Amino acid sequence: MAPELHPDVAHLSFLLGTWKGEGRGEYPTIDDFTYIEESTYGHVGKPFLTYSQKTRSADGVPMHAEVGYVRPAGTSGVELILAHPSGIAEIQAGTLEGQRIRLHTTSVGLAPTAKDVRSLTRSIDVADGHMHYIIELAAVGQDLQFHLEATLHHEA
Amino acid sequence: MAPELHPDVAHLSFLLGTWKGEGRGEYPTIDDFTYIEESTYGHVGKPFLTYSQKTRSADGVPMHAEVGYVRPAGTSGVELILAHPSGIAEIQAGTLEGQRIRLHTTSVGLAPTAKDVRSLTRSIDVADGHMHYIIELAAVGQDLQFHLEATLHHEA
Repeated sequence: MAPELHPDVAHLSFLLGTWKGEGRGEYPTIDDFTYIEESTYGHVGKPFLTYSQKTRSADGVPMHAEVGYVRPAGTSGVELILAHPSGIAEIQAGTLEGQRIRLHTTSVGLAPTAKDVRSLTRSIDVADGHMHYIIELAAVGQDLQFHLEATLHHEA
Repeated sequence: MAPELHPDVAHLSFLLGTWKGEGRGEYPTIDDFTYIEESTYGHVGKPFLTYSQKTRSADGVPMHAEVGYVRPAGTSGVELILAHPSGIAEIQAGTLEGQRIRLHTTSVGLAPTAKDVRSLTRSIDVADGHMHYIIELAAVGQDLQFHLEATLHHEA
């Protein structure tokens, strides 16, 4: 039996479920690219949401992935705790207004073999069963700038 | 069809699969406790392993969880990239000798609402289908000291 949603994350319930769609990316140091994404937000009855994301190319090759947790900071604050397989452990914090989330990096941990990532911002907007996000990135000596954008639809 | 294991993580294949068992914990600031654990290491054909862990009490209540990735650093180094729902994003790095892993925190990121965790060590030994680990913890003003120990058996 599925546990009941913890009341501390009731206002984040608009994120719950599986989201699928397509995105695109660009950065001065790499070629432009597109990707297919599947993201899932779940819960276990405790005051956080689970989060996992996977992207792949049009021909099915795994690209990026990330996993972690979404934590409420009261009713208008949000924290994102993320592990990236590229060797990055990241804390993001920010604000929630309705179904609009604005986050920025407050801490980046880099594994000894990881690329030099300085900070990210993440803007997530949910409306009418669709999620749109934009991610900005400061890495490998480049200033903070647009990196990723995707539109996902709610699957389940 | 399952992808082929990436050759860069072939020497970590002894971790792959699901591990189940029981553990115990103690710390000066809390009561001693026991837990039931399930951990899974997987892969997607890329040069890292996926990792997820969940513990629960004897009566089935979710306790700790963590998710992340295991990265090789050559053939004798290992990195662990972890997100904890308690608001901690952690990098661990260390050594691999045979099926013996010794890791220590190289970076801890704390969410604004997280408890004050300074560092951890993690010793993992696998032999004869069993995994034994010990975790030391420095947190909430306490010195680095024994915190958790579990023995898991390989399920699949």
